[in-house]
Amino acid sequence: MWREVEETVRRDGRERREFKNNGYLTSQLNIAVAVNADMNSSGLVCSDNEASSSSSSIALSLSTMTMYSLTPHLRNSLHCCPRQFQFFSFTLPISLKFNSLHPKSPRNPKSHPTLIVRSSSGSITAKPSSELRKNSTNDSGQEEKLRALRELFSKPSINIDAYIIPSQDAHQSEFIAECYMRRAYISGFTGSAGTAVVTKDKAALWTDGRYFLQAEQQLSSSWVLMRAGNMGVPTTTEWLNSVLAPGCRIGIDPFLFSSDAAEELKEAISKRKHELVYLYDCNLVDEVWKASRPKPPNSPIRLHDLKYAGVDVSSKLSSLRSELAGAGSSAIVISMLDEVAWLLNLRGADVPHSPVMYAYLIVEIDGAKLFIDKSKVTSEVMDYLKNAGIDLCPYESILSEIESLAARGARLWLDTSSINAAIVDTYKSACDAYHSASGYQNEIERTSSYGSDGHSRGPTAVYRHSPISLAKAVKNDAELEGMCKSHLRDAVAIAQFWAWLEEEILRGVILTEVQVADKLLEFRKMQDGFLDTSFDTISGSGANGAIIHYKPEPGTCSVVHADKLFLLDSGAQYHDGTTDVTRTVHFGEPSSRQRECFTRVLQGHIALDQAVFPENTPGFVLDAFARSALWKIGLDYRHGTGHGVGAALNVHEGPQSISFRFGNMTPLLKGMVVSNEPGYYEDHSFGIRIENLLYVKEVDTPNNYGGLGYLGFEKLTFVPIQIKLIDISLLSNAEINWINDYHMQVWEKVSTLLDGSARQWLWNNTRPLVKP
Amino acid sequence: MWREVEETVRRDGRERREFKNNGYLTSQLNIAVAVNADMNSSGLVCSDNEASSSSSSIALSLSTMTMYSLTPHLRNSLHCCPRQFQFFSFTLPISLKFNSLHPKSPRNPKSHPTLIVRSSSGSITAKPSSELRKNSTNDSGQEEKLRALRELFSKPSINIDAYIIPSQDAHQSEFIAECYMRRAYISGFTGSAGTAVVTKDKAALWTDGRYFLQAEQQLSSSWVLMRAGNMGVPTTTEWLNSVLAPGCRIGIDPFLFSSDAAEELKEAISKRKHELVYLYDCNLVDEVWKASRPKPPNSPIRLHDLKYAGVDVSSKLSSLRSELAGAGSSAIVISMLDEVAWLLNLRGADVPHSPVMYAYLIVEIDGAKLFIDKSKVTSEVMDYLKNAGIDLCPYESILSEIESLAARGARLWLDTSSINAAIVDTYKSACDAYHSASGYQNEIERTSSYGSDGHSRGPTAVYRHSPISLAKAVKNDAELEGMCKSHLRDAVAIAQFWAWLEEEILRGVILTEVQVADKLLEFRKMQDGFLDTSFDTISGSGANGAIIHYKPEPGTCSVVHADKLFLLDSGAQYHDGTTDVTRTVHFGEPSSRQRECFTRVLQGHIALDQAVFPENTPGFVLDAFARSALWKIGLDYRHGTGHGVGAALNVHEGPQSISFRFGNMTPLLKGMVVSNEPGYYEDHSFGIRIENLLYVKEVDTPNNYGGLGYLGFEKLTFVPIQIKLIDISLLSNAEINWINDYHMQVWEKVSTLLDGSARQWLWNNTRPLVKP
Repeated sequence: MWREVEETVRRDGRERREFKNNGYLTSQLNIAVAVNADMNSSGLVCSDNEASSSSSSIALSLSTMTMYSLTPHLRNSLHCCPRQFQFFSFTLPISLKFNSLHPKSPRNPKSHPTLIVRSSSGSITAKPSSELRKNSTNDSGQEEKLRALRELFSKPSINIDAYIIPSQDAHQSEFIAECYMRRAYISGFTGSAGTAVVTKDKAALWTDGRYFLQAEQQLSSSWVLMRAGNMGVPTTTEWLNSVLAPGCRIGIDPFLFSSDAAEELKEAISKRKHELVYLYDCNLVDEVWKASRPKPPNSPIRLHDLKYAGVDVSSKLSSLRSELAGAGSSAIVISMLDEVAWLLNLRGADVPHSPVMYAYLIVEIDGAKLFIDKSKVTSEVMDYLKNAGIDLCPYESILSEIESLAARGARLWLDTSSINAAIVDTYKSACDAYHSASGYQNEIERTSSYGSDGHSRGPTAVYRHSPISLAKAVKNDAELEGMCKSHLRDAVAIAQFWAWLEEEILRGVILTEVQVADKLLEFRKMQDGFLDTSFDTISGSGANGAIIHYKPEPGTCSVVHADKLFLLDSGAQYHDGTTDVTRTVHFGEPSSRQRECFTRVLQGHIALDQAVFPENTPGFVLDAFARSALWKIGLDYRHGTGHGVGAALNVHEGPQSISFRFGNMTPLLKGMVVSNEPGYYEDHSFGIRIENLLYVKEVDTPNNYGGLGYLGFEKLTFVPIQIKLIDISLLSNAEINWINDYHMQVWEKVSTLLDGSARQWLWNNTRPLVKP
Repeated sequence: MWREVEETVRRDGRERREFKNNGYLTSQLNIAVAVNADMNSSGLVCSDNEASSSSSSIALSLSTMTMYSLTPHLRNSLHCCPRQFQFFSFTLPISLKFNSLHPKSPRNPKSHPTLIVRSSSGSITAKPSSELRKNSTNDSGQEEKLRALRELFSKPSINIDAYIIPSQDAHQSEFIAECYMRRAYISGFTGSAGTAVVTKDKAALWTDGRYFLQAEQQLSSSWVLMRAGNMGVPTTTEWLNSVLAPGCRIGIDPFLFSSDAAEELKEAISKRKHELVYLYDCNLVDEVWKASRPKPPNSPIRLHDLKYAGVDVSSKLSSLRSELAGAGSSAIVISMLDEVAWLLNLRGADVPHSPVMYAYLIVEIDGAKLFIDKSKVTSEVMDYLKNAGIDLCPYESILSEIESLAARGARLWLDTSSINAAIVDTYKSACDAYHSASGYQNEIERTSSYGSDGHSRGPTAVYRHSPISLAKAVKNDAELEGMCKSHLRDAVAIAQFWAWLEEEILRGVILTEVQVADKLLEFRKMQDGFLDTSFDTISGSGANGAIIHYKPEPGTCSVVHADKLFLLDSGAQYHDGTTDVTRTVHFGEPSSRQRECFTRVLQGHIALDQAVFPENTPGFVLDAFARSALWKIGLDYRHGTGHGVGAALNVHEGPQSISFRFGNMTPLLKGMVVSNEPGYYEDHSFGIRIENLLYVKEVDTPNNYGGLGYLGFEKLTFVPIQIKLIDISLLSNAEINWINDYHMQVWEKVSTLLDGSARQWLWNNTRPLVKP
C-alpha cells in the first residue's frame, strides 16, 4: 500500500517544513520565487497567472514545479500526487528566507486545499468504535458537544475565540488509539483525514475528496463541510483569518501538533494578529468527552526477541549515545512510537496495525527514561528495562522531565518534525529561564559562549532529524531473516486464501469485499506469530479497485464480481516481520484492455525489481523504470512506487522512498526494505496494482566502475502473479524469464508448506509461461 | 559532445548562484546544512568528518549529496561529474540564507578545486594563434609581462595589490575571440580552462587535471601552478586571503565576471577585509599586450534567412516586449551572443565554432539598440536593422546607455548569471543616483513607492533569467527543417569520410588523429552551407578515446590504430543547422570486452531514444534509462547524457539537460533538440560513445492519462552504428528491431545523396542484424 511521508526539518534553529516525498523540490523552485515580483508576503511561489503570463524558462519550469508540489497534507489525504491536477493549490516547499518563519500557504486564491494542520505521518487510520459511529448522525448530540466545547472557551484559564482539533495523537502516529480520536468525537466525522475548527459561533470540518460523501452523511447541521481541493475552499487558517476579527486567541492542544506544524500555524494566523494559545493543561474535547471517552490503551508490552531484533538494546543505546556526542548534544527525546519500540526492542499493542505502545523515551549520555503507563509494563519487561539502565516514568511526566533536563544544562536533540510543540516549547522556555538566570542577555550571546569542550555552556537545543530513522530502516541479518520467514508464512495464508476464493467464486457463492478480507484474515490468523493486519485491507472489485485507498465497509461494500478485476492489497504483522502485498486477479475472462494494462504494470514491476544501480542512488532515480512501459501507451499512476517497511514494525516507514517526487535524497542502502508497487487505475472501471516487498542487497557485478558497489533487490514476497492477465506478446524474453523464474521460486519456497487444494492452486499458478 | 551548463540566479534582489545541472540540489541539502553545528561561517554544508561521524539519516543523505555537488567550475572543466570522486571538494549549491551573499566555498580543507571565477558557459575553447603559443615557454618574456602588469598596480588611478585574470570574455561565451584570451597571453598557458592571479610578488595559475602537464610545460618559473582538485590546493580566493595582508585591494576587469561571480568573489575576499576593485577603464593585460594584441574580430554579420529562422525579428521582439511588460520591466539587456543572434535573426563569425558576433542588445518597449562594431554591419544588415526599429550604437557605449536607461527611469530586466558585473554595477549606481536625486532615502522606501500602474516609480532592476533562453531552445518548424536537412548533408560527408578512412586503414596507410579530423573537415566543407566545425573535433584512438574531451594536437597526437577502438565526436555549423555526432568504430577485430561495453552503451542509447514520457518531465528523469544496461554489469559514465543544441547556433545551449544532476527542472518541451550520448570509458584503454541528436516530438499514444500529452524523440542524426561492435546475444528483439529500423532509415535518407564507394559503404553498414 502506498503512503506518502511528510517530514519536517529545522534550520538555523528556526522552524522550516520540508516534504521529503514532496515532488520536485529543487533550487529551481527558489529561482522561480526569486524572480516573481508578484509573490505575496507570506513567501508563496507564484500565481498561476504568473506561470502562464510568461513564456520564460523560469515560468515554464515553475509550472512544472507546481504539478509536483501539491499541498502535502492533501496529497497525504489522496495518497497520491496528481501530476496535473492544476485545480489544487500548490505550496512552496522551500521558503524565501531560511532564517525566518515561512509557512507554506496556498498560492492560488481560487483553490485552497491546504489544511494547515499536518503531521509527519500522513493519514490517520483506525476503526472508530461503534460508540463513535453511533453518535455521528445525531444532530442534537453534536450540537450539545459544540455547546459544551464553546462553554470552555470563556473560562478564565482558557479564554480563547477558536479551537483547532486535528486528527493527530501526540506522536504523529499513522494509526492512533480511539481515545485520541478527538476530531471524530467532536465532529461526528470518522474518516481518517480531517481537521475540525470551532469558533464561538461556527464549526467547520476540512477533509479531502475521498471523504466528501461520508462527511456529508456524518456531519450535523452545526457543521460546515470544507471540501479541501475544491475551488474556492479556504484553508483552515485562511478561514480563521476571515471569520475572526483581528487579534483573536486561537487555542490548540500543543501535544497534537508537531513543533513545525505549530510554528507554521502561528505564522499563518499572525497575519491577522491572532495569537496561537497553547493549552497545556487539558484537551478541551476530552473535557467534553468526559466519562464516555475510551481509556487510553494499556495492552501489556512485550520483549521483541533478540533473534528477531538482531542487536540488543545496550548496543543500540551505545550507538545512539555516540551519535549524541558527535552532534554536540547530551540528550535526545524520541517520540515516534516505532522508534521507541525499535530502540528498546519492545513491542506493544496500543494501536491497530502497528505493534507499538504509547511512550516517550529520553536518552541521555548516562541514562535513559521511558515515559509510559506503568500498567503496561510486565515484571519481565520491568527487569529488562532495569538491566538496560532505563528508568520508568509516568507518561504524563514528560514535560516536567524536559524542564528538568534544561535545568540540568542538557543539550537536547530535537526533531521538530515529529516532536510535538508542547515538548519543544517547554524546553525552549526552560532554556530561556536557565539563561536569564545565568545573566545572558540574548540567544546570540548565549550560544556564542562556548565551554572548553567546544559546546555552549548551559542547555541548548540541537535541531536535527531523528537519528533512529535511518538506523531502523537499514535491517540487520536477523531482521531480514524474520522478514523472509514471516513472508513465507504469509504466502502460505495467501495461497490458501486464493485457492479458497477462486473455488467459492467458481461455485457461484456471492461474497462481499469485506467478507473476502475477513476470510483472508482468518487464514493469516492460522499462521505462527500472527498478530494483526498491518493496515486496513484494500479489497476492491471492479471500479472500487480504481480507488487507490479504498476501504470496504460492511454495509456499503460491493460483492466480488466474477467478471471484474479484483484488487487485494493487504498485509500482516507477525512476531518476526511485517508484510504488505498486492495482487490483482480476474476470475473470468479479462478484456484485452485489462490484459494490456496489467502487462504494462507488470513490466514496470519487473523493471524495478531487476534494477541494478550504484551505491548512493536515491530511490527516485529508479522510479521511471516502473512507469516506462505504461508511458509508452500514454498511461501512468498517481502514486509513488515504493515505500519503506519496518521489520515487525510499521508498514510505512522512512526515510527512503521510490517516487517521482525527488525531494527525498536518501540513498537506497543495503538492508533497506521497500515496496515495489506500480499500478494503473481506470476511474469507474478497474484498478491494477502488483506489489512485492523487496530488500536492497549488494549485487556482485563483474565490474565496479568508480570503485563503487552496485546494489539491487531481493524479493521478500512469494505470491503468484495471475498468468491469465498477462499479454505475453508484449513481453521480452527477459521478462518472460523473470516471471517463470519468480514462479519457480514461489513454488519451491511455498509448496512444501502447503497441502491439498492450496498446494494444487499454487502448482496451477506457478506453471511457466511459454511464448507461443 | 557533452558540456555542463552552469547557471546563476538572483533572489530577493541579492546575488545567489545556482547550478542548474549541478547534481542533486534539493531541500535535503538544506536540511543537512541546518543540522550541522560544525559548518563554518561561510555557509558551507558539512565536513566529511561530519558526514562520517554520524550515521543519522541526515548525515548519510548528505554524504550522497556531496557526491553530486562537485564544484561546478571543476565539473565544467572536466566536462563530467564524477559521482564518487571524493577527493574533489564540494560546494553548497543552496546557501543558508537566501537574503545574504553566500559564495560557495570549499568544505574540505584537504582539497580545494574551486576556482572562484566561474562563467555560465563552462570551458572556453579556442585555438590560440601561433603568436600566443610561441611566447608560452619564453621565461624572460613571461617575466617581462608580469613586471609590466605589476607596474600598473601602483598607478594612482589603479592602486591595487592583486589582479585576477579569468578566461572569460564579456559575454560568458563558450568560444572566445583571440583578443580576449588575456589569461593565455599573460600566463603563457593556452589550455581552455584556467584562472591567473597576480600579486605584487606572486603569480599563480589554476587549472584542472586535464591541463596539468600542458601548464607545467607552458608556465615559466615566475608562475606557480595550482593543480585544482589536488589535495591541499587552495582556491583563488583562499590563496589571496592567505598571501595578502588584510585590507588589500584586489582588482578585476568587471566586464569579465558575471555579476553573480563578482559578488561571490567580493564576499569571499571580504573575510580578510579585502576590497574588490572594479577597473572599468582598462584591462590591465591589454595594457601590457598593447600593439601585439590581436584586433577584436570584425567579420561581417549576415542575415539568417527567414526560411531557416521561421519567425521574423519583429515577431520575436514583439513577444519579448510582452514578456517585459508582464514582468513589470521596461527594458532588457541581452549579452549572451547566441541570444542576440537568435533574437535578431543575424549570424556572425567572430569566434570559432559558433556563428555569433560580439554585441550587446538592449530592447525597450518602444525601441531597441544593438551595440556592435559598425564595421561588421553591411549595408544590407544596416537596412534590415533599421526596418526592425533597431538603432546601432558603438559596442563600447554600452555602459553609457545603461546609465541613460536608469536616468530615463527604465525598469531593467537583468539576468545576473550572464550579464557582466560592469553592466549590473553601473545600472545599480545609476539607479542609486536617480533615487537620491529624487529624495528617497533607501532602497526599501524607493521600491515600496509604486505608481498607479503598480510598478515602482523610477528605475529599478528586475532580476530574472533571460527570457530568450527557453524561447530559443524550443525550435519552430523552419528551424527543425533546417536541422533535419543539414543533418542529412552532414551524414553524407560522414559516410564519405568513413568510407575513405576504412579504405585507407585497410590499405595500411598511417594516419594521425589530427589528419583524420582534418579529412573529415574536408568532406564537410564540400557540403552546401557549411560554415565551420561546431567544436574542436574529438578524434581519439585507443586510450585517447577514454579522455572525454580529448583534443588531438598535430605534434603529439596518436595515429589511428587499426587494432584499437576509435572514437570520433564532431559537428558542423551549416547555414541551416548545427550538428554533433559521435561514433565509435573498430577497424579490426574488437575484443569481447569492447563488444560488451559497446553493446551496453548502445542499449542505453536505444532506451533513451525510445523513451516516451508525460509532458512536464524534466530531462533528468530519463537519464537512468541510458545507464541501466551499464549499471547491470557495474559500469557507468561520468558525464550527462544529453545537452541542448542550437539551430544554426551554439552546439551547447540550455536550459534543458538530460543528466543525473537533477537540479535542472526544465521540462523537455516539444521542439527542443537534445543530444543522446551515453558512453563508457576505460582509462588507459578505450572510450566508447554513441551520440545522435534528437528533437522532442509529441507521441500519439493510444491513451492520454491525466489529460496529458506524451512526448518522445525523433532522430536528427543518420549515421550507421558499427555492427561488428554489437554483441547481438545481449540484445532484445526490440533492440535489434530498433537498430535495423534505424539503419533502414539511414539507407533510405542518405543513400540517394551518395554514390560510388561511399554509397557502397553505406549499404554495407546498414544491413539488418539477424539474431543467430
